[in-house]
Amino acid sequence: MPFAPPSTRAQFAFLHPLRVRWAETDPQGIVFNANYFMYFDVAVTEYLRGLATPSPASFGNPDEEMFVVNATADFLGSAAFDDEIEVGVRAARLGRTSATMRYAIFRGEELLVDGAMTYVNAPRTAKKSAPLPQSFIDKVEAFEVTPPE
Amino acid sequence: MPFAPPSTRAQFAFLHPLRVRWAETDPQGIVFNANYFMYFDVAVTEYLRGLATPSPASFGNPDEEMFVVNATADFLGSAAFDDEIEVGVRAARLGRTSATMRYAIFRGEELLVDGAMTYVNAPRTAKKSAPLPQSFIDKVEAFEVTPPE
Amino acid sequence: MPFAPPSTRAQFAFLHPLRVRWAETDPQGIVFNANYFMYFDVAVTEYLRGLATPSPASFGNPDEEMFVVNATADFLGSAAFDDEIEVGVRAARLGRTSATMRYAIFRGEELLVDGAMTYVNAPRTAKKSAPLPQSFIDKVEAFEVTPPE
Amino acid sequence: MPFAPPSTRAQFAFLHPLRVRWAETDPQGIVFNANYFMYFDVAVTEYLRGLATPSPASFGNPDEEMFVVNATADFLGSAAFDDEIEVGVRAARLGRTSATMRYAIFRGEELLVDGAMTYVNAPRTAKKSAPLPQSFIDKVEAFEVTPPE
Repeated sequence: MPFAPPSTRAQFAFLHPLRVRWAETDPQGIVFNANYFMYFDVAVTEYLRGLATPSPASFGNPDEEMFVVNATADFLGSAAFDDEIEVGVRAARLGRTSATMRYAIFRGEELLVDGAMTYVNAPRTAKKSAPLPQSFIDKVEAFEVTPPE
Repeated sequence: MPFAPPSTRAQFAFLHPLRVRWAETDPQGIVFNANYFMYFDVAVTEYLRGLATPSPASFGNPDEEMFVVNATADFLGSAAFDDEIEVGVRAARLGRTSATMRYAIFRGEELLVDGAMTYVNAPRTAKKSAPLPQSFIDKVEAFEVTPPE
Repeated sequence: MPFAPPSTRAQFAFLHPLRVRWAETDPQGIVFNANYFMYFDVAVTEYLRGLATPSPASFGNPDEEMFVVNATADFLGSAAFDDEIEVGVRAARLGRTSATMRYAIFRGEELLVDGAMTYVNAPRTAKKSAPLPQSFIDKVEAFEVTPPE
Repeated sequence: MPFAPPSTRAQFAFLHPLRVRWAETDPQGIVFNANYFMYFDVAVTEYLRGLATPSPASFGNPDEEMFVVNATADFLGSAAFDDEIEVGVRAARLGRTSATMRYAIFRGEELLVDGAMTYVNAPRTAKKSAPLPQSFIDKVEAFEVTPPE
């Protein structure tokens, strides 16, 4: 089931620009589909840096990590080598121990990819979930243009 | 929304074995999430080869290509460097111009990843959809243990 | 045989900054070695853009492409996730149909990787070499702080 | 300086077969150059497994790791999507704390890539070199068709 309605630029207070690399494209001349999920990962790192969490690879507790439990994307268009694109990131749902981030990739006004990833917060050494740090929740709520769903 | 119920080995008449490469793993010591979608791609190539389509990169017409329009996965476990895993592939839905393939990654009996990708069949030079070749539909229906949904 | 003496920042009029992505690092917590060659590729694209060649994927003739015939690198240090690094690029040798580019990756003042790649210019459709465009040679000679060797 | 004379199949007692994946190829329709170094890495893992070292990611001591200090390759031909290739691996030089492995990639009888990588053995936690395990040296000398140079 595709995301409906599709994402719009106005929903994203945070957009990370990047340029498509040769190595990321395939014989069709377009970005290989799995690499769009890698772009989501690059962009959430920058989103977390923008929130000034202590580490851009966690929700804020350096002894904890983010484990992806779901990833989904609709591919509406294709980015080609050397295209300048922007990856929008926003927190769509904050649970007790997990967060769902929404992503959208734009080339100018054109929506190319619409996606989401859900992350569970967990201690680095154990694979059991831990509550999201309150500092993360507070920062997200202060930052987002639209409240998490 | 996770896949429910989760996939089982018995649903897959086709399982492609592969071994996790060092370059595919990350500082958590596990496969980087986007690479599981790359594994899906490797496995569908082998599934198409198994069906004896004329090319493992298309549904059967060498002037047409498969364009991914949706990808989704639940991550239930993690594969680590050097793990031997199997990627199950089956046709779950055959539409007029698109097909949804279901994927599941197992390490022994353990389900690690449960996913799906939807592909549109399109001529190489135009970005408009074209009907799935009847030969593909016939081969899938002869091959699958369970009929497409 | 390592490059001797090793590269210095002063040799590079062009340095492209980039930040190490999670997906590029491995269970040792450092960039997987092959990805440094991918960084060279990203940086030469930006170097060619800086020269204002008609396309950043060729030496200037849109009907021709660059084919790598040799790549070599010394790894003196390691970049980790989220490190900010710079990739220096310079033309070290311009032949009749090929060019050798030198690369060096720095983190601050520290030299991490010292490398070179040799590219042959060739028509897109034939695999035989073609002379480097004179416009490329002129632009390189006008740009480089040190003359090509 | 290219390897001269180029490698031959007869020099390799160990050849690892693999098939080129779609994600590894680029808009030229051929394997992106950096991925050949990734293939070397895949193949040395299998070579080490063949030697029955305790771990395929080290020279034999589980508390030590291999750190690449040099990589070099000549690209003589190109592998395309779905090509079946073989990656030859042999120990070319065993030093006190480092080893140079030679690699060659063949498609049938055709040599596509000729390369070498030098690895230093080092404890996982310190970045200082440690002697190669004697067990590794013994196993290599028993295995190789030609003595290390």
